[in-house]
Amino acid sequence: MRNILVIGSGQSSSSLITYLLNKSISENLHITVADVSLELAKSKVGNHENGTARSLDILNETERKETIKNADIVVSMLPAHLHINVAKDCVEFGKSMVTASYISNEMKALHVEAVEKNLVLMNEIGLDPGVDHMSAMKIIDEIREKGGKMLLFESFCGGLVAPESDDNLWNYKFTWNPRNVVLAGQGGAAKFLQEGTYKYIPYHKLFRRTEILKIDGYGKFEAYANRDSLKYKSIYGLDNILTLYRGTIRRVGFSRAWNVFIQLGMTDDSYTIENSEHMSYRDFTNSFLAYNPYDSVELKLGYYLKIDQDDIVWDKLTELDIFNGTKMVRLKNATPAQILEKILRDSWSLKENDKDMIVMQHLFGYELNGEKQQIESSMVCIGDNQTYTAMAKTVGLPVAIATLKILNGEITTPGVQMPISKEVYEPILKELEENGIVFHEKKGPYLGYNPERVTG
Amino acid sequence: MRNILVIGSGQSSSSLITYLLNKSISENLHITVADVSLELAKSKVGNHENGTARSLDILNETERKETIKNADIVVSMLPAHLHINVAKDCVEFGKSMVTASYISNEMKALHVEAVEKNLVLMNEIGLDPGVDHMSAMKIIDEIREKGGKMLLFESFCGGLVAPESDDNLWNYKFTWNPRNVVLAGQGGAAKFLQEGTYKYIPYHKLFRRTEILKIDGYGKFEAYANRDSLKYKSIYGLDNILTLYRGTIRRVGFSRAWNVFIQLGMTDDSYTIENSEHMSYRDFTNSFLAYNPYDSVELKLGYYLKIDQDDIVWDKLTELDIFNGTKMVRLKNATPAQILEKILRDSWSLKENDKDMIVMQHLFGYELNGEKQQIESSMVCIGDNQTYTAMAKTVGLPVAIATLKILNGEITTPGVQMPISKEVYEPILKELEENGIVFHEKKGPYLGYNPERVTG
Repeated sequence: MRNILVIGSGQSSSSLITYLLNKSISENLHITVADVSLELAKSKVGNHENGTARSLDILNETERKETIKNADIVVSMLPAHLHINVAKDCVEFGKSMVTASYISNEMKALHVEAVEKNLVLMNEIGLDPGVDHMSAMKIIDEIREKGGKMLLFESFCGGLVAPESDDNLWNYKFTWNPRNVVLAGQGGAAKFLQEGTYKYIPYHKLFRRTEILKIDGYGKFEAYANRDSLKYKSIYGLDNILTLYRGTIRRVGFSRAWNVFIQLGMTDDSYTIENSEHMSYRDFTNSFLAYNPYDSVELKLGYYLKIDQDDIVWDKLTELDIFNGTKMVRLKNATPAQILEKILRDSWSLKENDKDMIVMQHLFGYELNGEKQQIESSMVCIGDNQTYTAMAKTVGLPVAIATLKILNGEITTPGVQMPISKEVYEPILKELEENGIVFHEKKGPYLGYNPERVTG
Repeated sequence: MRNILVIGSGQSSSSLITYLLNKSISENLHITVADVSLELAKSKVGNHENGTARSLDILNETERKETIKNADIVVSMLPAHLHINVAKDCVEFGKSMVTASYISNEMKALHVEAVEKNLVLMNEIGLDPGVDHMSAMKIIDEIREKGGKMLLFESFCGGLVAPESDDNLWNYKFTWNPRNVVLAGQGGAAKFLQEGTYKYIPYHKLFRRTEILKIDGYGKFEAYANRDSLKYKSIYGLDNILTLYRGTIRRVGFSRAWNVFIQLGMTDDSYTIENSEHMSYRDFTNSFLAYNPYDSVELKLGYYLKIDQDDIVWDKLTELDIFNGTKMVRLKNATPAQILEKILRDSWSLKENDKDMIVMQHLFGYELNGEKQQIESSMVCIGDNQTYTAMAKTVGLPVAIATLKILNGEITTPGVQMPISKEVYEPILKELEENGIVFHEKKGPYLGYNPERVTG
């Protein structure tokens, strides 16, 4: 029996643990699921003969080291800042390790020692980062192998509600950490490259500069720019590329309405609102508007942000109850962002039978044999239910598959890694396909920007 | 001979040093002016028999302590973060001290020891903070002495160009640190109180929520909200006040045009622009606009920010050359804010014969004997020339007057102080009047907000 230790059994571990348990008999595995909540760990393992649930306080060094020492490989599904504790023990005891998080500087520092001990510390192998790396590098490598030259790379990803569960005006529900959705885009200007020109969008304009994308069978979507597009230049080896853009996907019309919250200042998490506990939702909205007791909150807001009286934005705002004078905030010393999150949770929480949806699309422009061409690669994944969500599947399955392949010696390159080499992405993408996570490719002429060269 | 040590002889020390030198014979004073630049110190002292210029490196402890030990009182006109070095030595050697800066936590920590040694550490006694404290507290105390109850306090201050030197479309020139002007309003939402309601304005809306004020003989001005209005509640003892607002004054129309820079993202100081050195001013502007090689930068900007073709904002932007394709940025790895500052310096630097202007206005609303009343108190100060600017006079004279009054035992309350008690503000305001810094008061019925109670 080979022992796989999975630390952290939150929502995104369901598909991961089930995959490993399903493989446990044929692959001769024992899966230990450790969580600070024994209850939660138990719920994921069930009664499976090859699974054990246990409680683990990750900050208890003795307990942690003891648990890791007994494993053959370790999966950390902890919050990102806690991986490093696990990683150091893994290196100490000679265990390989897998995470779905971005490589931190502390993690990077373990590279040399991991190589010396021939350990694989595989990171960024969830959905985003993860599936995005693998599906993008597969096509970029194909283009390069043929002698093509990359001109454009655009990549979009989003967690949304599935069409069959889409029943609000925003076409959006929380399928992931709501706090991150409220704060999305903050912390600095978005930077990207378009046809050789660097472009910068400040936060307060981010949701007014969306790009449109289409996915066969699912219609139109929009995307707002991520902060970090430029770093993919070096990661993917795209040093001379003309266009480089990464964005987050929403349904069309979401961003224009979301912009109202940004303009008002409701997404600010840097200060607390006086007396927030005893405010109504309407009071909260009014605190961002000019003082005038004889004008309505609605009219002041519409005038301030220049919203026409027949704009669909009104219906979206009203649906969220932000003008409701009787619903109370009931949060002590809360920031605007915390209050907005509470208001949105009322309307955007998934109902019991709701399903989520993950959408990813890449666009590759390149020149091959003197001809400019384009490949579009899209993936849509719908959740099965509230346990095996699209998010749990797309995050957890690549982690699970990588874990088993490292354990079985199919993925061997040692050190602190991310899944951008063929050795890693090829077998994993293949197995993801068998599990319903499929990219559809479309080839066509290169469009770039303003392909018809319209002027005038 | 009593020795006054003035450390720091930058632009705002001119009037201060001249005042002390003028008093030196009748008051039996010797003035030592110390600066890291001996040249600069000499230029301020001239050939005055009671003055000495010397060089001083404030971070050289031996030299600093030696210099302070020989003084009877010390004035620090250093950058704010350097005062604490001087203050600690002053307490050690038993010297009183005067600064024009906000009281830091480190400074506050010296209070008990200063009281024990009977030393006055007077701070916040320049213009703003300084003249604002004194002129406001004078009227607040008068209202309270009569038994009045404060309802409203609004206070505005700004450094502008004098009407006779006002020759650009923005009605603005740099009369103070340009970097602070570019960054003004950043770092958090502006908070204030209107008729009992807390109001919050995010940075990207700050310059679209201005208030209008009028000053007899000088016409209309506008003001945008300062970040910190609420802290004056406790400082001035205005705990139950309904309206509390502090703002920065500009000429009408400045803020609406300035908002263009904020919307574009040009005031951001948190990241550097790629290849900034070799950009034209036009390239810089274009980097915040959508990519399209067949549209003009002008049209893209006008469409993005919804600026009508006949809007005066176009003339203001064109006057600054932001669409100029031949003027080069020539700054390496510069932030947007640094580049914008350079562009503005081209147009907004004072010419040799230009004069500056300081404008301050307070509004006090109160209830006395069952009647609601209002006092408006305004001050305008015009600079004499580029040495004795309005800024140098309004910052330096209160510092100089306070220094002499502490030395002469007329201001005696020991500890870390600011000028909010009658003992301090009354004699200083009187002497400021003799030096042409005069507040004009106007009494009238209380207006508050929407005084006519118009509804409908």
